[in-house]
Amino acid sequence: MAERFEIVEKALLAMLEDKKYATLRDILVTMNPSDVAGLFGGLEEKQIPLMFRLLPKEQAAETFVEMEPEAQELLIQGFSDNELKEVLDELYVDDAADLVEEMPANVVKRILKHADPEMRSSINQILRYPENSAGSIMTTEYVSLRPHMTVGEAILRIRRQGIDKETIYTCYVTEKDRTLTGIVTVKDLLLAEDDEAPIEDIMLTNLIYVTTQTDQEEVARMFSKYNFLALPVVDGENRMVGIVTFDDAMDVMEEEATEDIEIMGGMMPSEKPYIRSSPIDLFKNRIPWLLLLMVSATFTGLIITSFEDALAAQVALTAFIPMLMDTGGNSGSQSSVTVIRALSLDELKFRDLGMVLWKEIRTSLLCGVVLAVCCFVKIWLVDFLLLGNPAITLRVDLVVCMTLAITVVIAKMVGCTLPLVAKRLGFDPAVMASPFITTIVDALSLLVYFMFAKLFLHL
Amino acid sequence: MAERFEIVEKALLAMLEDKKYATLRDILVTMNPSDVAGLFGGLEEKQIPLMFRLLPKEQAAETFVEMEPEAQELLIQGFSDNELKEVLDELYVDDAADLVEEMPANVVKRILKHADPEMRSSINQILRYPENSAGSIMTTEYVSLRPHMTVGEAILRIRRQGIDKETIYTCYVTEKDRTLTGIVTVKDLLLAEDDEAPIEDIMLTNLIYVTTQTDQEEVARMFSKYNFLALPVVDGENRMVGIVTFDDAMDVMEEEATEDIEIMGGMMPSEKPYIRSSPIDLFKNRIPWLLLLMVSATFTGLIITSFEDALAAQVALTAFIPMLMDTGGNSGSQSSVTVIRALSLDELKFRDLGMVLWKEIRTSLLCGVVLAVCCFVKIWLVDFLLLGNPAITLRVDLVVCMTLAITVVIAKMVGCTLPLVAKRLGFDPAVMASPFITTIVDALSLLVYFMFAKLFLHL
Repeated sequence: MAERFEIVEKALLAMLEDKKYATLRDILVTMNPSDVAGLFGGLEEKQIPLMFRLLPKEQAAETFVEMEPEAQELLIQGFSDNELKEVLDELYVDDAADLVEEMPANVVKRILKHADPEMRSSINQILRYPENSAGSIMTTEYVSLRPHMTVGEAILRIRRQGIDKETIYTCYVTEKDRTLTGIVTVKDLLLAEDDEAPIEDIMLTNLIYVTTQTDQEEVARMFSKYNFLALPVVDGENRMVGIVTFDDAMDVMEEEATEDIEIMGGMMPSEKPYIRSSPIDLFKNRIPWLLLLMVSATFTGLIITSFEDALAAQVALTAFIPMLMDTGGNSGSQSSVTVIRALSLDELKFRDLGMVLWKEIRTSLLCGVVLAVCCFVKIWLVDFLLLGNPAITLRVDLVVCMTLAITVVIAKMVGCTLPLVAKRLGFDPAVMASPFITTIVDALSLLVYFMFAKLFLHL
Repeated sequence: MAERFEIVEKALLAMLEDKKYATLRDILVTMNPSDVAGLFGGLEEKQIPLMFRLLPKEQAAETFVEMEPEAQELLIQGFSDNELKEVLDELYVDDAADLVEEMPANVVKRILKHADPEMRSSINQILRYPENSAGSIMTTEYVSLRPHMTVGEAILRIRRQGIDKETIYTCYVTEKDRTLTGIVTVKDLLLAEDDEAPIEDIMLTNLIYVTTQTDQEEVARMFSKYNFLALPVVDGENRMVGIVTFDDAMDVMEEEATEDIEIMGGMMPSEKPYIRSSPIDLFKNRIPWLLLLMVSATFTGLIITSFEDALAAQVALTAFIPMLMDTGGNSGSQSSVTVIRALSLDELKFRDLGMVLWKEIRTSLLCGVVLAVCCFVKIWLVDFLLLGNPAITLRVDLVVCMTLAITVVIAKMVGCTLPLVAKRLGFDPAVMASPFITTIVDALSLLVYFMFAKLFLHL
């Protein structure tokens, strides 16, 4: 399907080049706004307004929302006041607020000037909430009903008000002072047997809601737990102020997973998608961790320096340093990555530390023993017999393999503990992934290595 | 909110202990099934059926779906035939299919025996589709309409049939032979001005659908792109066979992100959540990569061995091996992780390789130069002046820093290329993350290091 889509894309762009506007328009109107927005990515700057003006009003607005910020800015700069107003009128409030956040100051000024007063005040309200809070991702447009309305009246109200609402399928029952008292779905309304029944008889009252301050990650987790279409957002006095819809929760889930993955990869979380990040952006996200980890490797260097004599006496030992360090790093990051993901999905808490340690000790013993045995055989077969390295003695082999087993156990202990401790202390556990663990485990594994070497090789 | 919930949880379990069943039941009926299912996690085996029987029929079934497989199996084993039938009757077909997949053979036999014939055939149909395909996660229950129906007739049909459908909000317009011809939402129906208008006049005909064979990852991406509530699934002849709903797509998104993270962490993807994985499960997922990477570190060892004389002559060089290897590994995994995530989100394709390389070359030069300069100063200040290591000469410092800069560039080139190549060859790009990249970069950085050492230190 994706391949077929690329062919269609090329054909459409060719039509634009050839000025076959009528045909192009006839095809565009049948397309989904997300796909139309995708087309704009392949256009030259001057073609963007040209194609945009081919779209009918409503589709134009829906397409606009899905476009990249660069193209949106370009369009707004070129819009007449009237065109801008038309697009803004079609936007949902949360999309308008996102737009305002992305645009430079002069564009924002123009947007706010042409938004109708109600939308302007809603945008300002949403923008006041802390970044990554439920308040900042909610929309203020929802269907509200009163407890004493009948089912029939409620359906009528939805039919009259629904057109401007992002979702009509979940309706919120509020008192006069906007206190949230119940939830009723369109399914409940349509399937209700008695049109005269009051809403309060059929509404759900075991309310699950978030406050404007709830972290968006928590919001996304609630969606994946409860499978809701929308979640009500209330203020400190339990008054209804907006809703978060499932599509925004999906975006948050995706963003949060990306952020975790970036942090685990030893980077600062990015602001933009990779394609739109400049080398300077990438540099800024990556250099802090690289510098920090480079400097902290000084300790590992010190350990090696202080055992310099031992290494000089038995140079063969050096050859196994990378294998020991890498295996330690890999073992540690396996545990830390697993624990970090379980924390992100809310499957683990700090109080589970004992259970986690016990599980990881047994796992690491299994891994450590199997690895040590395989390593012992491998060194004997490959390094000694096959490659005929005379420096490899049975004792050297033993020292390497014992170090390996112990390193794996230590690495897994460190790897599973640090993310839980970080979480407990209020840091992001994802920081405790591979790069960080590797640095610690490197130092520990070398210490064990040289200790064993001194003990068993009498260096 | 989570903390408050734990207190409630404890209070409820205490009521069960004290046999205050009536009070407990009164509270349970007000709770969301997902939360009730959570309670069962804290129960002893014999308490599970006891509390389950307190729930009213519909809530019992909804709770059952959300429970862990262990508890489900325990309950089914203890159910009378009648109880089993009651629970099965309330399940949606896709949940029933999931259940059948999780249970051992004897339980499956009992389930299929007591499911009504229609459900039995639907379950069998769903189970026949390949794992991770749209067919395997769809449900066969959806509202279908005919093109010639009027809006009024359609609403009536929904009111009559809706109760058993997982979603009524998106309805599918099909011909007599089940060919999908249009989509109409309940919003469109409710907001339609003319109750007598035929469905074909208001339905959407730019159909976006998947086939039974479409990969579930692609399905999830379509949800996040188009923000649909449900996506129709058709067979090879464009006949409607089922729908995938947004909540299942969210689960897939979460699963796929977890799988990517696990593979990037050097593990096989897990079948169960961490809490339910035994040490043997964890061992099996982790040992293959550890073994593979341990053995492949042989090459790194060989490189060191073949430069043994150089190292013996200049032991100070050994101390910088960990720093060079780690920085290389970190730089490489930054790039690979970024590219892997962009591939997962469908932001990159193989044909973007040139763009990616150009971006990464510039980024890596920036990172490499900054790191090299900082490293040079650090070695001079810390290792030479502060720690007074006489073996550190200006030349040694230069060799280390030049190696560092070049390693960073190589690591980022390798890191960004391998995932794209893997994708092109049909492998999972996530395999090309840290552990794999580290092993390759280790060998390359050591080669560069020793080459420079030979060249500039005349070893």
